[in-house]
Amino acid sequence: MSNRTEISSLGEFGLIEHLTKNIELHNASSILGVGDDAAVIDHFGKQTVLSSDLLVEGVHFDLTYTPLRHLGYKSITVNLSDVYAMNAQPTQVLLNLGISNRFSVEALDEFYEGVYAACNRYGVDLVGGDTTSSQKGFIISVTAIGEVTPDKYVKRSTAQKGDLLCVSGDLGGAYVGLLFLEREKKIFMESPGVQPDLEGESYVIGRMLKPEARKDIVDFFASSEIVPTSMMDISDGLSSEILHICKQSNLGCVLYEEKIPVHEEMKRAAFKFEIDPTACALSGGEDYELLFTIPQTEYDKLVLNEQISVVGYMTEPEQGAHIITKGGGRHAITAQGWNHLK
Amino acid sequence: MSNRTEISSLGEFGLIEHLTKNIELHNASSILGVGDDAAVIDHFGKQTVLSSDLLVEGVHFDLTYTPLRHLGYKSITVNLSDVYAMNAQPTQVLLNLGISNRFSVEALDEFYEGVYAACNRYGVDLVGGDTTSSQKGFIISVTAIGEVTPDKYVKRSTAQKGDLLCVSGDLGGAYVGLLFLEREKKIFMESPGVQPDLEGESYVIGRMLKPEARKDIVDFFASSEIVPTSMMDISDGLSSEILHICKQSNLGCVLYEEKIPVHEEMKRAAFKFEIDPTACALSGGEDYELLFTIPQTEYDKLVLNEQISVVGYMTEPEQGAHIITKGGGRHAITAQGWNHLK
Repeated sequence: MSNRTEISSLGEFGLIEHLTKNIELHNASSILGVGDDAAVIDHFGKQTVLSSDLLVEGVHFDLTYTPLRHLGYKSITVNLSDVYAMNAQPTQVLLNLGISNRFSVEALDEFYEGVYAACNRYGVDLVGGDTTSSQKGFIISVTAIGEVTPDKYVKRSTAQKGDLLCVSGDLGGAYVGLLFLEREKKIFMESPGVQPDLEGESYVIGRMLKPEARKDIVDFFASSEIVPTSMMDISDGLSSEILHICKQSNLGCVLYEEKIPVHEEMKRAAFKFEIDPTACALSGGEDYELLFTIPQTEYDKLVLNEQISVVGYMTEPEQGAHIITKGGGRHAITAQGWNHLK
Repeated sequence: MSNRTEISSLGEFGLIEHLTKNIELHNASSILGVGDDAAVIDHFGKQTVLSSDLLVEGVHFDLTYTPLRHLGYKSITVNLSDVYAMNAQPTQVLLNLGISNRFSVEALDEFYEGVYAACNRYGVDLVGGDTTSSQKGFIISVTAIGEVTPDKYVKRSTAQKGDLLCVSGDLGGAYVGLLFLEREKKIFMESPGVQPDLEGESYVIGRMLKPEARKDIVDFFASSEIVPTSMMDISDGLSSEILHICKQSNLGCVLYEEKIPVHEEMKRAAFKFEIDPTACALSGGEDYELLFTIPQTEYDKLVLNEQISVVGYMTEPEQGAHIITKGGGRHAITAQGWNHLK
């Protein structure tokens, strides 16, 4: 960036005006957006779904290898993912930022470019939020609002015995992408002259830096008249999320290792680090795919969708949650997802 | 606190379960609360009002003199204040926390006691949010949701020429309370053995540490069939907020210094610091009173409400925004409210 405009030169309200002046609202339900005490949203007889997340620099993202545009995009999509995981359509977002004075207006503009790109891609309106300073580090809090036809929302606690356990897309890629980025950061820290060697790894790195939310899957449910019996998004790794569904639905499950969808590029990349691709899919986080259950009778409706894999089925709670490995072994599933508090 | 339980001993999900296990939902609209990807809210034909804030340790609060219980209470009330400022009734809140490892579970429990006290006092439901770690400092992000009869919400931009300019309660107290707290902190830092001398200042200190949102005023509007023509809450000081109303409504105004409501204890306290009580009311922040305009024809409806003061009236934009001092002087109003970005 050749220009640097100090944020203090705009002031708080000038900054908000600068960052939000090009907002175009997409949804008729967005009655009042940025610029008042609160946003106003109409519902036309639908129910509202709300989800909120906090992202903290150094905990959830590392600016040494995360372009601000991608970070803005991802901040939005990870929240939309939670709304889709309720079988709802996101309509609005609120964005709170805490920024330190090492940020310039140009840097914030880059972040907002990503925010607006995600809003446009998913047809959601940025309708409010708060911009303030932080003593250290960049802080992002997003609240996503969505709508759903009354009682079509899908909880985690309503899977049924015998239901098929399904996932969208492929898993483990974001985690391997993170390994590459962390490796190159380490090399850069030790020898700042060395150029990063990320060639050929664009798939897994894209999975980490610019994840998408699975709007297509929720749209497919609607057009195919499928209502999953339970659903959640996969942000902490497949094994951790499966245990949530089991616990909250009071069921057990059987998961087949060979059915877990992994991308060829993820497998190749995992082998470079000499780690098991299945372990990446089970315990790596941030894939933002959907995990859901459907009755066996609905199987025909999704068998032709290549973006959906049936990976197992739900059992009595007494049977626990198990994985059947490719070698035929049977092991209890343990949660090894991310725990930000450890 | 005699016990200290490390947060890591509970894990992220254990912690959320611990902090939210006693939630009782107050609103029929709160269909699904904490524990899923998102909360679900029904609307019964009403419109939704949404507001979100970010509070950062060292910027918005100082834990050396802010009890965690009060901080929890205030985190909620300042957001509810934004919802009331839309002439709406808050119904739900989402709470995101970023916590460093210097916090114990007991400390968080204290914070949540305040959160729940505010939720109970105002009849709102905590329906979701995110708890994560922070590298440094305590981070709080609250999103408040409210409801309003369609088109009864009140914006900042719709004041009319000739309207009366009104404020609730009294102003400047929170700022003077902050001065006392900062003074005692300084003395304590220099001589840790000295006990804080805050006796007799409980009014202004309470205004700072445990502000209330003006639900009573919004309820009064409903029962008196008053719909203000414009409204906002006073978080940055009266002068800054008046300029917002003027700018967004494209009007000027006249404000009478002698009409600005100040509490006797605030005046006495301000004089101890040798500062002008009017300056505290104009430029001090965090009073969370309501600033609103009503047509002159509505004056009879609010004249008997002692919690409301008429402080001026709206004029043509060409006349600018002016204050008439007690001595009869006429000065342009300038924004000297808080600017967290400076």
